[in-house]
Amino acid sequence: MTTFSDIDRLAISTMRLLAVDAVSKANSGHPGAPLGMAPAAHVLLRNMRMNPKNPGWINRDRFVLSNGHACALLYSMLHLTGYDFSIEDLKSFRQLHSKTPGHPEFELPGVEVTTGPLGQGVCNAVGIAIAQANFAATYNKPEFTLSDSYTYVFLGDGCLQEGVSSEASSLAGHLQLGNLVAIYDDNKITIDGDTKVSFDEDVLKRYEAYGWEVLTVNKGDDDLASIDAAIKQAQKSKDKPTIIKLTTIIGYGSLNEGSHSVHGSPLKADDVKQLKKKFGFDPEQSFVVPQEVYDFYQKSVAQPGAELNAKWDQLFSSFQKRYPEVGKELVRRLSGKLPENWDEKLPRYTPKDSAVATRKLSEMVFEDIYAELPELIGGSADLTPSNLTRWNEAVDFQPTNSGIGNYAGRYIRYGIREHGMGAIMNGISAFGANYKPYGGTFLNFVSYAAGAVRLSALSGHPVIWVATHDSIGLGEDGPTHQPIETLAHFRALPNTSVWRPADGNEVSAAYKSALESKHTPHIIALSRQNLPQLKGSTVENALKGGYVLQEVSNPDIILIGTGSEVSLCVEAAQLLAAKNIKTRIVSMPDTLTFDKQPTEYRLSVLPDRVPIMSVEVLSTAGWSKYAHQSFGLHTFGASGKASDVFKYFDFVPEGVASRAEKTIAFYKGKEVDSPLKTAF
Amino acid sequence: MTTFSDIDRLAISTMRLLAVDAVSKANSGHPGAPLGMAPAAHVLLRNMRMNPKNPGWINRDRFVLSNGHACALLYSMLHLTGYDFSIEDLKSFRQLHSKTPGHPEFELPGVEVTTGPLGQGVCNAVGIAIAQANFAATYNKPEFTLSDSYTYVFLGDGCLQEGVSSEASSLAGHLQLGNLVAIYDDNKITIDGDTKVSFDEDVLKRYEAYGWEVLTVNKGDDDLASIDAAIKQAQKSKDKPTIIKLTTIIGYGSLNEGSHSVHGSPLKADDVKQLKKKFGFDPEQSFVVPQEVYDFYQKSVAQPGAELNAKWDQLFSSFQKRYPEVGKELVRRLSGKLPENWDEKLPRYTPKDSAVATRKLSEMVFEDIYAELPELIGGSADLTPSNLTRWNEAVDFQPTNSGIGNYAGRYIRYGIREHGMGAIMNGISAFGANYKPYGGTFLNFVSYAAGAVRLSALSGHPVIWVATHDSIGLGEDGPTHQPIETLAHFRALPNTSVWRPADGNEVSAAYKSALESKHTPHIIALSRQNLPQLKGSTVENALKGGYVLQEVSNPDIILIGTGSEVSLCVEAAQLLAAKNIKTRIVSMPDTLTFDKQPTEYRLSVLPDRVPIMSVEVLSTAGWSKYAHQSFGLHTFGASGKASDVFKYFDFVPEGVASRAEKTIAFYKGKEVDSPLKTAF
Repeated sequence: MTTFSDIDRLAISTMRLLAVDAVSKANSGHPGAPLGMAPAAHVLLRNMRMNPKNPGWINRDRFVLSNGHACALLYSMLHLTGYDFSIEDLKSFRQLHSKTPGHPEFELPGVEVTTGPLGQGVCNAVGIAIAQANFAATYNKPEFTLSDSYTYVFLGDGCLQEGVSSEASSLAGHLQLGNLVAIYDDNKITIDGDTKVSFDEDVLKRYEAYGWEVLTVNKGDDDLASIDAAIKQAQKSKDKPTIIKLTTIIGYGSLNEGSHSVHGSPLKADDVKQLKKKFGFDPEQSFVVPQEVYDFYQKSVAQPGAELNAKWDQLFSSFQKRYPEVGKELVRRLSGKLPENWDEKLPRYTPKDSAVATRKLSEMVFEDIYAELPELIGGSADLTPSNLTRWNEAVDFQPTNSGIGNYAGRYIRYGIREHGMGAIMNGISAFGANYKPYGGTFLNFVSYAAGAVRLSALSGHPVIWVATHDSIGLGEDGPTHQPIETLAHFRALPNTSVWRPADGNEVSAAYKSALESKHTPHIIALSRQNLPQLKGSTVENALKGGYVLQEVSNPDIILIGTGSEVSLCVEAAQLLAAKNIKTRIVSMPDTLTFDKQPTEYRLSVLPDRVPIMSVEVLSTAGWSKYAHQSFGLHTFGASGKASDVFKYFDFVPEGVASRAEKTIAFYKGKEVDSPLKTAF
Repeated sequence: MTTFSDIDRLAISTMRLLAVDAVSKANSGHPGAPLGMAPAAHVLLRNMRMNPKNPGWINRDRFVLSNGHACALLYSMLHLTGYDFSIEDLKSFRQLHSKTPGHPEFELPGVEVTTGPLGQGVCNAVGIAIAQANFAATYNKPEFTLSDSYTYVFLGDGCLQEGVSSEASSLAGHLQLGNLVAIYDDNKITIDGDTKVSFDEDVLKRYEAYGWEVLTVNKGDDDLASIDAAIKQAQKSKDKPTIIKLTTIIGYGSLNEGSHSVHGSPLKADDVKQLKKKFGFDPEQSFVVPQEVYDFYQKSVAQPGAELNAKWDQLFSSFQKRYPEVGKELVRRLSGKLPENWDEKLPRYTPKDSAVATRKLSEMVFEDIYAELPELIGGSADLTPSNLTRWNEAVDFQPTNSGIGNYAGRYIRYGIREHGMGAIMNGISAFGANYKPYGGTFLNFVSYAAGAVRLSALSGHPVIWVATHDSIGLGEDGPTHQPIETLAHFRALPNTSVWRPADGNEVSAAYKSALESKHTPHIIALSRQNLPQLKGSTVENALKGGYVLQEVSNPDIILIGTGSEVSLCVEAAQLLAAKNIKTRIVSMPDTLTFDKQPTEYRLSVLPDRVPIMSVEVLSTAGWSKYAHQSFGLHTFGASGKASDVFKYFDFVPEGVASRAEKTIAFYKGKEVDSPLKTAF
């Protein structure tokens, strides 16, 4: 039973004013939510177990600020409790190269995930809660509770309106994630004004419909005891996530409290002064923290947290003695390492092996490696038999009482929720313990998750998209399903590895790259149709991102293909050879990886003096970095048998060969330089 | 009160078997939902007012199949009721160039919107219902009910799990769209199996929370009277949309009824035979329609519909006599024309006018044209004061009893629901009557709506995205908000016009293009920061998509800029001129429009023999079509004052000038051809 007194109110006022001062100094930012949510933030801190000196402690409670624009509050919380944020950092809020950017970023100490784009944080929190439940079910033993952390998330009306949060919330309710606690800042204000202009649904009823526990705190601005009681009640519910609707006044204390003008603009100077007076602070001072507030947070949060961390370290020590094998596995995972030689399990192929769809080859990789990698946790957005994402012996991640799985299961039925899946995967990855999440859907529908994929790339979460049905090759489902712009889109997104493997060796390479990645999300585009095992392909070569598949001396032309088009290029090369035209064939399963190779290597693949043509049955945007001419698709696809559709768009050997000949003719008599050479 | 008898059951069986036969003949497709939903489809047809001979009748009831994969059912419905779909069309289901593609497409007779990607159709239906409510409120007069149509939509578990449908459903409840009726195919099956693996929320409770009326029909496979009663009940509720939960057995009648195997694969041959026998049909015959079924649909649907249409024509005739001005406006809108000379209201600028942010110039366009274009219906995803999307005198589109608007209002408060907004705009456009919807958000968050934008492009809905805060120029909000890949993404999407106007004249051109477009969605990227009015810019030039802003004889280099980078190029050119380097400056506000210009014109802008460099502070992917070298951004942005951030990334005049010089040096002594010239 927590008691609250003057020191708590002083701490809350301190937190409020730090946030306001940060925004005012930057002359930019959002003071409203910090003023409204500081009481809840303070009470939450008093209920959280965390060690500011060790932000990576695996059993820390997590806090996610889904309404990331309120980060002046978060930075203040982190500073006051002793994370590595100084007062100077607060003063450089929103300045270039500061440690306190305008929206919180994953790598910062105490920041669990990058937020800002609305809806994402609460979904990340669902993912963290999933990982925590799986981790606990996997490693906790009698007398060894290694994992029992909670995941807390603040969110506002914005996040609740975003569809992605509905997806993850519905799944969280189904999964009965009892350690997830959401606090909803019910301030009835959004940028366009009162929420009644567009958002008057019964939020709690909706969350009841999802299977959440719903609680209410009417006076979120100062009723600390009720906030505390709600959090403790939420902690008790073991088979339901909880949402606490916390009614606050946005911009509490400001002359404009309760209005949308305090949402996203600094308070005026006189307003700030009256606010400081109201809270008993000197109106002429800024960034003031009474020493007793620092002391209080040390005594009530930081020190207890450090002690709990130390106790956990001892527990883990004993655990390793008692369970040496599992202990080693845990040590390995906690240090972010994969098992030694795990990749020896990746299958390798020769041209003697039969033609197989790369989505099927992907399934075979899962079968070969799942037992090696306990951190691998897969799933699909309700396309499991199409994506082929589930190994045969998989146990589904489900509440035990469902009868269809348990929390130690490593296959997640995400439902038809691609965007939610992407954001949840970010959370699973953010939990730590080397979790390697993958999620399947059709390549075209990765686009539904663009908001989450972007954050994977920006934050550096190495999640994996198993993206099957990767072109017009999917056939009859037609243009609504056939991706055209998708690879160009994600290749233009920084820090995103977009693999389109051509055969089994390349599929193995894609997964080696994806699973060994520490900071780069991977999208692996896979075919529905069978593709031959290629002569010249090896896992090692494919790991360079691009390589010479088929060499010839003094080539007249170089063809670059990806995925299904590589074998097409091989066939075209045969037609060209019959005309004495010599073709070097390059396979380029991932341009990002290729870009990272030494210049000398890349120029050996794509040298001067030879015309180069890329062949990929999607948009050509981006290929000019590697090719002089590009054969692709710039219209939507068509519904029909795959072979008919390929033929219609001339993606047949003759179509490639004729364009290769035109390319050669185009550059006849001209000296071409490698496209890799640029002016700057 | 509708009565049902043997002929209804015969008709339902006919519809079921036509769908099954279509899938079997194609050896591809989804037989399960058609089998389950045929009874509801039949009962619905008996409650709908439509004229198969006039699919464009503005007061027709609309039907949207949100679970678009069930389109074998839709095509059968359309064929049987007399739309322009022959039996041969059904037989060529899913074949290349047929009229019956694997997912239904907008241009087909009787198909209201393209569906297939889950979640979209129900949102389109919300948009259609919004347009209908606005149209009725605007034009209905006492004794002249020109518009009272209903919008019906089928959807399944898939659509309900997709977050986008939650967004639109929440808004529909708030907007009290009484003429919207959703029928939810509750068959408890998705691709991954029983819905209990991931989706066990209380759907009806959620919809109650949104403010919908919820009804239940337990025996959707054969209780026609209950289905009918529910539909009629739904039609009565005037201030709530309705969802009818209809429990069916997927694949009803098949040996595998109720299992996920009937969802997306053709039934086996023996299964089809037993099904036909079960329904009293000859197991050896396919595509059978008893004449009495054709007659029945003629008598109960087609003829009454034709009569209602004829009555409406007379009513409209009288209306035009009684209200000649409004009548003319309606005739104009129904013929898909804009008012004569409406574009004379578009503002024009000279360099004497002050520098203004293009988002502000956009707002000024709305102020100038909203009164001219009653079909213009705007909104924002809760960023109205940032997007500047609302003209001062606007009336919000709201239920009258809200006290904050009415249905004749033309400004929609979409809430924080970008994807829902995009899909709703598609529906508003699809309603007809020349509706011109636009929706605002930050450019970066158009990506949240990628699924809907893609369908805008695929279907040809000329919706408009007002996409402000278009680069690192937005400053302190930082990398979570600063777009990098966004323009490259949408330029790679076929049939998508991506405008980035540089000044006031170009903004006017963007809106002229967008509003006159019949089939091409527009994304208009606008700055937060002030930009100067450029010397050399005109509306007419900008309408070519790309033009010479600043000419010089015998240029040493050509710089192509867009938006904020055009004035940057102008400044860079001055620095270069001081070194006797002559620069032609090209502004290219929209590459799609430029691509459509005659070759001669395009080559006059980007000729041979001059190195060309593009300058745009986002990804360079796609620029190689127009430039030899490209200065852009390939990393995420940063949080800081805009001027600091531009400087950090070297997007300053010196940064452009130095790269221009490097470009010139790179091509020295070489003959460059225009990038517009390609080998094929």
